[in-house]
Amino acid sequence: MAGIITLGHGSGGKLSRELIENSFLPRLRSPELARLNDAAAITVSDDNLAVSTDSFVVTPLVFPGSDIGRLAVYGTVNDLAMLTARALCLSAAFIVEEGLAVETLEQIADSMAAASHEVGVPIVAADTKVVERGSADALFINTTGIGAIQRTPPPSGDRAQIGDKIILSGTVADHGIAVLMARNQFPFRADIASDCAPLWDLVGAMLDAGAELHTLRDPTRGGLATVLNEIAGAANVAITVEEAAVPVAEPVRGACEMLGLDPLYIANEGKLVAVVAPDGADRLVAAMREHERGREARVIGEVTGEHPKGRVTVTTRIGGSRILDLLVGEQLPRIC
Amino acid sequence: MAGIITLGHGSGGKLSRELIENSFLPRLRSPELARLNDAAAITVSDDNLAVSTDSFVVTPLVFPGSDIGRLAVYGTVNDLAMLTARALCLSAAFIVEEGLAVETLEQIADSMAAASHEVGVPIVAADTKVVERGSADALFINTTGIGAIQRTPPPSGDRAQIGDKIILSGTVADHGIAVLMARNQFPFRADIASDCAPLWDLVGAMLDAGAELHTLRDPTRGGLATVLNEIAGAANVAITVEEAAVPVAEPVRGACEMLGLDPLYIANEGKLVAVVAPDGADRLVAAMREHERGREARVIGEVTGEHPKGRVTVTTRIGGSRILDLLVGEQLPRIC
Repeated sequence: MAGIITLGHGSGGKLSRELIENSFLPRLRSPELARLNDAAAITVSDDNLAVSTDSFVVTPLVFPGSDIGRLAVYGTVNDLAMLTARALCLSAAFIVEEGLAVETLEQIADSMAAASHEVGVPIVAADTKVVERGSADALFINTTGIGAIQRTPPPSGDRAQIGDKIILSGTVADHGIAVLMARNQFPFRADIASDCAPLWDLVGAMLDAGAELHTLRDPTRGGLATVLNEIAGAANVAITVEEAAVPVAEPVRGACEMLGLDPLYIANEGKLVAVVAPDGADRLVAAMREHERGREARVIGEVTGEHPKGRVTVTTRIGGSRILDLLVGEQLPRIC
Repeated sequence: MAGIITLGHGSGGKLSRELIENSFLPRLRSPELARLNDAAAITVSDDNLAVSTDSFVVTPLVFPGSDIGRLAVYGTVNDLAMLTARALCLSAAFIVEEGLAVETLEQIADSMAAASHEVGVPIVAADTKVVERGSADALFINTTGIGAIQRTPPPSGDRAQIGDKIILSGTVADHGIAVLMARNQFPFRADIASDCAPLWDLVGAMLDAGAELHTLRDPTRGGLATVLNEIAGAANVAITVEEAAVPVAEPVRGACEMLGLDPLYIANEGKLVAVVAPDGADRLVAAMREHERGREARVIGEVTGEHPKGRVTVTTRIGGSRILDLLVGEQLPRIC
C-alpha cells in the first residue's frame, strides 16, 4: 500500500481498520488476530509457563543480516528459550511515528511474519499506536511471548555454582557492530552482518544432550561482559574467562579495534551463554557443535569461589588479568 | 532518586542496574521480576488463556483522575476482562526519552504498583529502553497480560445476534475530555476526571448474574461509536442506538459542545459495552447497577437485521436518525 502513516491510522477509526486489514492481517495471517477482539484466546496444555517482554528501538530499522521485525520475533523467542521455554505465542505492539512510509511498515510486517513462520510461533495479539512527527523515531516494536518451560526449575542466574563451566555458543559482537556500521557514520566499510537468529532449536538440542543447565542467557544489550556480571551477582560467585577462548570474527575484531570498542561488551542476537556442571560440559559442547547455531561453541571460563564475590575476571592473551566490570555509560545506544 | 534518565540507564550496564534496583524493584515488588532473568516463570492451572497487548502513549503523563501507569495496568486488565478473562499476570515495558526526571519515572512506577496491587495482578516481567532526546516523547509504556478465561467460547464481536440488546455500563467521553483538558490548550476550565478504572469485578458480577454475554468491549480509542461499528462489522448485523439513552456527564457534554466533539467518539477507560440475549438483559442491568462501576448501566440499543449490514444508526433526541460511521481522521491523538 502506498502512502504514509498519519495520526488517523492510530485513531481506531476507518484508517486504523484499513491499515489492519490491508497491511497487517494479510501478512501476519493469524486467525485469532483476525477476530479483532480486545484480547486473543489461546489454549495451553502446560502448567509451567514463561513470560518475556522486550521493546525494540533499533536504528536503522533494516541492517545487514536482519531488521527490527525479525529481531523482535527472535529476541523474545530467545528470551523464553533461556528458561528452556518453547515459545507458544507472541503479541506485537507497534508505536509508529506519523510520516513513516506504509511500505516500510509492511516490509517489517512481512519480516515478522516470515520469522514467526520460521520459528512456528503465531502472533496472536497486536496493537498499533501512532504519535506525532518528532514524538518517536520511525518505529518501535514491543513483543511479549509466552512459552512452555521444559525443565523445572528452569535455569536461572542465581543457580550458577562454584566449579561450573561457562560455555559460549559462538562469536561475539557481530550484531552490535553490524548495526553500528549500518549507521554510515564511519569512513570505512566492513562486511559484517548481524548474528540475529532464533535459538530455541539449539536449546532443544542442549536439553536432549542431557546437560545440567544451571544458567542460560543470551548476551544481547551489554554483551557477554554484562551477562557474566549479572550471573556472578545473582549467584554471589566469581567468574573467570579466558579472553583467547572467546571467538570474535576477524572483520568484527578489526572494526572494534578501529573504533576503540571492547567486543565483550557488544550486543549479540543469536548467541547464548550456558553455565553447566563441569561433568557434562565437554559432552554438551560436542552436542552444540553438531547444531547450526553452535558450530563454534566452547568452554570460555568457569565459576569460582574467589573473592570478591560478584567479580568477573578475564585472563588476557598475554597472560595478565583484568576485571570485567559493568559499564557505567552507554557504548552503543539503540542497537536492539 | 534525583537526577535525569541518561542513555546509560538503557545500556544494560551499571546505570541500568541502579535504575532497576533503586527505582523499579522496590516499587513493583515482584519476586519473579527480582530474579532478573530473561523471562519470568509462572504456574497456571487453566487451559483457556487470553492474551492482550497495548502500548500507552498518552500525553500528558499525569491527568485528572489517573496517569499513564495506572492506565497501562487497568487498560490491559480490562482488555482481558472483555474475554471474561481474570488477569493472572502482566509484563511492563518502558521506552524512556533521555532527559526524563527519574522522579517522574518513579512516580509512574508507584502508580503502576498501586494499580497492580489493587487488581491483584503481579507484574512479572519488565524491560526498559532509553532513546535519545527527541526520539520519543517522555515515556511510552507497553503492558501485555495473560488471563484465565471464565466462559468458553468467550464473548466475541462476531457473536452478536439479531435481537440482542446493547448495554452500556455508564457515562461516555470522560477519559478523552479529561486528557484533552489537561493539555491546557483551551481558554476554559472544567472539572472533569478520567473514568480510568479496572472492570474485572464488574465483569465478574455480570457472569455471576448468569447473563448470556455474546460480546463485551471496552470503548476506549474511538469511543462507543467505533466499538459499535466493529461489532456490527464483525457480526454482519446492523445496530441501532438511542442517543438519549447514552449518559454523558454535564461538564463533559458542555466541553464537547464547546469543542465541537461528538461524545460518542471520545475514549473511555472504565466503561464497557455488552451485547446480550434480550431475555436476560434487564436482569443483567439490575445486577450491574448493584456494582460500583455499573451504577448507570442501561440498555442503549439493539442488534437488528436491517440493511445495510454493518451499519450503526443513532435515533437522535429530536426523533430523527443519523448514521454513526467510523471516523476517517483522528479527533484526539494520544489519549491512551
